Amino acid sequence: MILFNQVAIVGTGLIGGSIGMALKKNHICRQVIGVSFHKRSIDLAKRKKAIDTGSQSLKIIKDADLVILATPVELILKLAPQIARVIKKDCIIIDVGSTKEGIVAKLGKLFPNYIGTHPLTGSEKRGIVNAKEDLFKNSSCLLTPTRNTAVFVRKRIEELWVRLGARVFYLSPDKHDEALSFISHLPHIAAFALIGVIPGKFLNFASGGLKDTTRIAASDSELWTDIFLNNQKNLLRAIHEFEGKISLIKQAIKKKNRKLLNKILAEAKSKREAL
Amino acid sequence: MILFNQVAIVGTGLIGGSIGMALKKNHICRQVIGVSFHKRSIDLAKRKKAIDTGSQSLKIIKDADLVILATPVELILKLAPQIARVIKKDCIIIDVGSTKEGIVAKLGKLFPNYIGTHPLTGSEKRGIVNAKEDLFKNSSCLLTPTRNTAVFVRKRIEELWVRLGARVFYLSPDKHDEALSFISHLPHIAAFALIGVIPGKFLNFASGGLKDTTRIAASDSELWTDIFLNNQKNLLRAIHEFEGKISLIKQAIKKKNRKLLNKILAEAKSKREAL
Repeated sequence: MILFNQVAIVGTGLIGGSIGMALKKNHICRQVIGVSFHKRSIDLAKRKKAIDTGSQSLKIIKDADLVILATPVELILKLAPQIARVIKKDCIIIDVGSTKEGIVAKLGKLFPNYIGTHPLTGSEKRGIVNAKEDLFKNSSCLLTPTRNTAVFVRKRIEELWVRLGARVFYLSPDKHDEALSFISHLPHIAAFALIGVIPGKFLNFASGGLKDTTRIAASDSELWTDIFLNNQKNLLRAIHEFEGKISLIKQAIKKKNRKLLNKILAEAKSKREAL
Repeated sequence: MILFNQVAIVGTGLIGGSIGMALKKNHICRQVIGVSFHKRSIDLAKRKKAIDTGSQSLKIIKDADLVILATPVELILKLAPQIARVIKKDCIIIDVGSTKEGIVAKLGKLFPNYIGTHPLTGSEKRGIVNAKEDLFKNSSCLLTPTRNTAVFVRKRIEELWVRLGARVFYLSPDKHDEALSFISHLPHIAAFALIGVIPGKFLNFASGGLKDTTRIAASDSELWTDIFLNNQKNLLRAIHEFEGKISLIKQAIKKKNRKLLNKILAEAKSKREAL
């Protein structure tokens, strides 16, 4: 069943491109339009059948029934006013940004038919070149409605994500950012810091443990600088908690407190096993 | 080619059991004998063809040409004097413990034909039930000779590990423990601390990033308590470095220092990509 006539994706990278591929594969809309500042990204998106047509200009999205903002957070905030001037009146807008409080506050004012969404998937890899049509299969997607979100917008966007393969959860924008500071942003901080302190001369001996623990440190640095600064308040609190736990473990090692150390590790183990 | 007549493995768990399976599969010795305090472990090791025969008593190792100590570090230190009283004079001894300074100092005195080894492989899973014959294929194994290690011992044990599938590197015991504090022990600390601070209510939303970053936090808590305390001095220094990097990132986020933050993340990214 067709859910939208024309869908426009602004930002045809890993997430935007994968959405396009999944939209077309699952016959969710009649036409997918792509916007990217990079002509190569548009060309590749066409070749990967992520979009039917594309442009470097936002004018192309004027007839879209759904616009998906899939650029980094800072660019979503910057492009939103221009997009508001182009789209037709009953167009639905979503974004897929990794932080939500700031975006939802701004976009909720600009667009009458808006809801924030955040697919919890992705990769340390970026770009349309890594896009794939099943990226959202068996993933989770967080929707962040506000009291102003119309029911028909929420329902259609829930259906969209379900048809893309995701389980949908609802969270307020502030709870979303708190949750993400712990389950995504803090792990990235830990991974960046961890690989950062390993002396180069020992990297030869890296085994599976170090590789897994630091995989996400290969993520794009500008994208994550952006995300960290956009979730500053929550993230500083999460880092504080993490520092406290590290310090506790350090003290137990310093004092050779075997019992306390084993207790901390055993609690962590059972929590990890429940994941 | 047969490298040893009879090999005894003390501790038929994940590592010991996998060594047994690989020894037999690759025809490296004529007979494999297993010792474990747990009768079930011996029975299962026999069934998995990791050992030919086994016992809960150390007496069974008296005719072995090679004894492999594959118990946790504390138990290696505890069993070593008993083993020294049982073995024949020209028996070669190795251990596979995760820390080396303390073990090599003690075992080097007890056994004339000893060399420390550390296969850098394994899993968050334990026990003979998870043992597999190809565990060491394409892995690295660190050998930690001292000035007292006889050349024939070093050569035969190097050949043993190469035939088990590993690349062999040589490090002094103290360099080994320094290297491991960074490439293995610190990542475990980070993983245990990270999962430890994630609020339970958010675990539902865990995606690949958190799962990979904390996989090794499912490791055995007693084993790792043991390892952390046995590498106290190096590990405290590695934790100190890690805390410093976390603090630097935190300050950059606090001060919204985009340039510094991006620089730290970009350095980490390029280091991770080189892994």
